[in-house]
Amino acid sequence: MKIEGRNAVLEAIKSGKTIDRVLVRNGMRDEPSRALVSAIKTAGVKVHFVDKITIDNESVSGRNQGFIAFVTDYKYAEVEDILSSPKGSAPFIVILDGVEDPHNLGSIIRVCECAGVDGLIIGKHRAAAVNETVMRVSEGSANHLKIARVVNVNSTIEILKKKGVWVYAVELGGEDMFKSDLTGAVALVIGGEDTGVNKLTRSKCDKTVTIPMAGKVNSLNASVAAGVAVFEAVRQRR
Amino acid sequence: MKIEGRNAVLEAIKSGKTIDRVLVRNGMRDEPSRALVSAIKTAGVKVHFVDKITIDNESVSGRNQGFIAFVTDYKYAEVEDILSSPKGSAPFIVILDGVEDPHNLGSIIRVCECAGVDGLIIGKHRAAAVNETVMRVSEGSANHLKIARVVNVNSTIEILKKKGVWVYAVELGGEDMFKSDLTGAVALVIGGEDTGVNKLTRSKCDKTVTIPMAGKVNSLNASVAAGVAVFEAVRQRR
Repeated sequence: MKIEGRNAVLEAIKSGKTIDRVLVRNGMRDEPSRALVSAIKTAGVKVHFVDKITIDNESVSGRNQGFIAFVTDYKYAEVEDILSSPKGSAPFIVILDGVEDPHNLGSIIRVCECAGVDGLIIGKHRAAAVNETVMRVSEGSANHLKIARVVNVNSTIEILKKKGVWVYAVELGGEDMFKSDLTGAVALVIGGEDTGVNKLTRSKCDKTVTIPMAGKVNSLNASVAAGVAVFEAVRQRR
Repeated sequence: MKIEGRNAVLEAIKSGKTIDRVLVRNGMRDEPSRALVSAIKTAGVKVHFVDKITIDNESVSGRNQGFIAFVTDYKYAEVEDILSSPKGSAPFIVILDGVEDPHNLGSIIRVCECAGVDGLIIGKHRAAAVNETVMRVSEGSANHLKIARVVNVNSTIEILKKKGVWVYAVELGGEDMFKSDLTGAVALVIGGEDTGVNKLTRSKCDKTVTIPMAGKVNSLNASVAAGVAVFEAVRQRR
């Protein structure tokens, strides 16, 4: 759904609606416009600057005032919902740290749904949200998985740890995953395409677990790494 | 590399060069052109019919006569090379049955390279070849993996079985993969994006092994399924 015009976009930001991105016309240099751009960015929403023709083409109302927000209809869950999941006694959670490619996010949602993960936690900053592309790639599995979108992944990790969840970063240079215990209340943190799990996030985790590599290039696509790690946990947890 | 003109393309086909695809100008209805199109298709090479402007834009020589072949510089291995791999005593092979998406092929090549698979076997018909996109997605790992391209995947499966390799289809409706023995001389057959492993191919396999699914949608992306299956085999084989 598109929300157009300066005030409408500001209200959408304030209301905490899930906004995929905001198109802003190039050259909006007046003070209210700059304040709005700043508010959008502070809310962790991506801003795309485009020319007048592009934004007017996207406009439904014809009165966009240089601002169009794309609101996601997807209904996110809360972290609490995921923790109180009735599926099993010990929660099994996946956390994404900076996965920006919608195709990877969609593919990881499929992994989580197939594996019976209790819920997926994604960040709001520098991370793909559940938009139409993600929905399509996930083949609808986003509708069968609890997905929570949080402002700060690191604070959420702290909360999970206090609730008794063991949080493991899936990343190079850690303990051999096939020798790690992935049973009990566990959250696996999967890193972004190029960066992996960032250093600060990794330091918040209880441990780093590593998919053993035998090759020369030794880099797996984020969704493949998620698949391997999640299904190894599934194997152990049965 | 581009090969242009009717005779040059015919020679390229005859010589068994690895051709990614051939552009053919729309409306080439004379007998030699139709015979050439038929020869290209018989060789299992994709034909793309395009308009005059498109093909002339692609032309380097300016004398394409309505035919431009895109030749792959990638040097494929032979199945024999893969079987005689010195990495370990028992070969571990992955076979793709109709994976058409170059992104999936590239990602699966990364999986195989990371996991230390002895070699990957792909078909020539209705299957992606190692082209520039695949090379890019594989992050160069195609250069560190033996990849054989065969005319008939089913005959190759027969050959492997005669050589003492156990061939398992990775597909729904089979034995729980986590309870299957994937050690010894093993080839895993991964199916295409929509079709999975086709019925005939599956009947040639010794067994079907299945990634256990707990969700409602229960479909994994081909490269994720390859990752899960290959690394479960890695875990067992250590």
